[in-house]
Amino acid sequence: MTVYSVGHKNPDTDSVVSAIAAADLFSKWRKMECQPVVQGKINPETEFVLGKFGLAAPEIMESAKGEKAIIVDTTEASQLFDDLKSGEVLIVVDHHKLGDLTTSLPLEMWVRPVGCTSTILTEMYNLAGIEIPGPLAGAMLCAILSDTVMFKSPTCTDTDKKACAQLAKAAGIEDTTSLGIEMFKVKSAVSGTSAADLMFRDYKDMTINGLKIGVAQIEVIDLSVLEPVKTALYEECRKAKAEGRHSVFLLLTDIMKEGSEMLFVSDDPDLVKKAFGVVPKNNSVWLPGVLSRKKQVVPLLEKALA
Amino acid sequence: MTVYSVGHKNPDTDSVVSAIAAADLFSKWRKMECQPVVQGKINPETEFVLGKFGLAAPEIMESAKGEKAIIVDTTEASQLFDDLKSGEVLIVVDHHKLGDLTTSLPLEMWVRPVGCTSTILTEMYNLAGIEIPGPLAGAMLCAILSDTVMFKSPTCTDTDKKACAQLAKAAGIEDTTSLGIEMFKVKSAVSGTSAADLMFRDYKDMTINGLKIGVAQIEVIDLSVLEPVKTALYEECRKAKAEGRHSVFLLLTDIMKEGSEMLFVSDDPDLVKKAFGVVPKNNSVWLPGVLSRKKQVVPLLEKALA
Repeated sequence: MTVYSVGHKNPDTDSVVSAIAAADLFSKWRKMECQPVVQGKINPETEFVLGKFGLAAPEIMESAKGEKAIIVDTTEASQLFDDLKSGEVLIVVDHHKLGDLTTSLPLEMWVRPVGCTSTILTEMYNLAGIEIPGPLAGAMLCAILSDTVMFKSPTCTDTDKKACAQLAKAAGIEDTTSLGIEMFKVKSAVSGTSAADLMFRDYKDMTINGLKIGVAQIEVIDLSVLEPVKTALYEECRKAKAEGRHSVFLLLTDIMKEGSEMLFVSDDPDLVKKAFGVVPKNNSVWLPGVLSRKKQVVPLLEKALA
Repeated sequence: MTVYSVGHKNPDTDSVVSAIAAADLFSKWRKMECQPVVQGKINPETEFVLGKFGLAAPEIMESAKGEKAIIVDTTEASQLFDDLKSGEVLIVVDHHKLGDLTTSLPLEMWVRPVGCTSTILTEMYNLAGIEIPGPLAGAMLCAILSDTVMFKSPTCTDTDKKACAQLAKAAGIEDTTSLGIEMFKVKSAVSGTSAADLMFRDYKDMTINGLKIGVAQIEVIDLSVLEPVKTALYEECRKAKAEGRHSVFLLLTDIMKEGSEMLFVSDDPDLVKKAFGVVPKNNSVWLPGVLSRKKQVVPLLEKALA
């Protein structure tokens, strides 16, 4: 029986590349028949990365329907198949906080507080004594550069940097910075994309203290490219909130200025002040230094909503 | 700041010994100041094991009150401090199914589908290149013998057996079987112990499909020693159920006959038939071959209640 490896809904580069890497690693390490899949359309950044290194995009899978799974890059039930419980989760590889995924049987979990799931997989290849194929190494390098915002994010650790050095060597890449900027330029090319597409490209639903909260993020090299669509993006936040969520946040992250403008709609008018200690204006607030949803946004929301 | 390492409520030998081992390992490996604690009174089996190898019993801790924690041998919120969320979980080492523990921050998890948390810690010592102190190795060996019912439980893997061989060597123990039988004899000496003490010595609360379920287990070398207290034990099941639980199960496990008599009280009169395919008589049923709550009882209850 084929085991599928899969990352979260609204797949980002790490989520897709880690699914490919996990399938490669475990098929060689454990002699399992593994196949990477995705839970939705691949975004332009990931398309660029896969194209650059000649890797095939995993097929979209709509349902877990009794299958055995390797889950990468999340432990949030809301970011996984609704019918996951009909199958079995064998392995989890993740670098986020522990979410509300539960299982019926003992399993294997590789969770580390580093900047990227691809970093953990790099260490697992090393532990297993298995060589990372060059093209895959290039894609994993891009996943780490993307997740750590080229090492600028507070989520970035020395382990991530060490993994990047190893992956760059394996992929024959000399100038990691140029590769990173090339990738972020693709990500920043937002003209011609609908506000809805931008909103849900890197969008995550989570349950905090029983409340359904959505947090989206768009990372660009220069925030000015988003000016023309900002009103439409706010409208998307409002629409998402109207679908039964307590709050919806959208981080517009400027990776060069190293900060985020946050748009939001919430049932709790004081939530942003409580969580971030700043008073918003017109449902928007500038958060200097904030690059990481995982480390600089979600934990503050959790504390404020506790 | 001291990081405490702690196992589940109603501590069993693995839960206590793994807390001691995790504190030893991480203090040496990560130069953290670590202290093992327990969440309740240590049982006679564990007392025997600690005494045999000259290890101090960890102190009882009543509250997590903002502390940093290493959690061993569980990921069930109901088996941990009620105020765990006021602190931070840094590390989890466990061999059970993934429970409903969640965290606010990224963490480190070492979860493997093996028979005992002490087995995982043995592998972690090896990975870190740190020697396991002899007395601790002896106690970890006992934890594995206890959890795997001397290798008879279906939860036992080759990894557990391999760890035992290594630990026996490190502890200077030649006859592992005699040590196991000596330990299980201590566990079987139930005369003079109240039914309530027996009931809650190895008792676990869990939430299955929103229902609160309690499953207790008493392992003895010969079931006949439990005959005089069986009526009183059933009364304890009824009392525990009356405190707001959907069902309470008590496994009376005969480790020589390799099976369990299960006493139970449930809101659902058909639950045992649905889960185990056998018709009970007088709220009791003999389950041949059933030694493991984790692998042979809880998953079947989960399926039946899904």
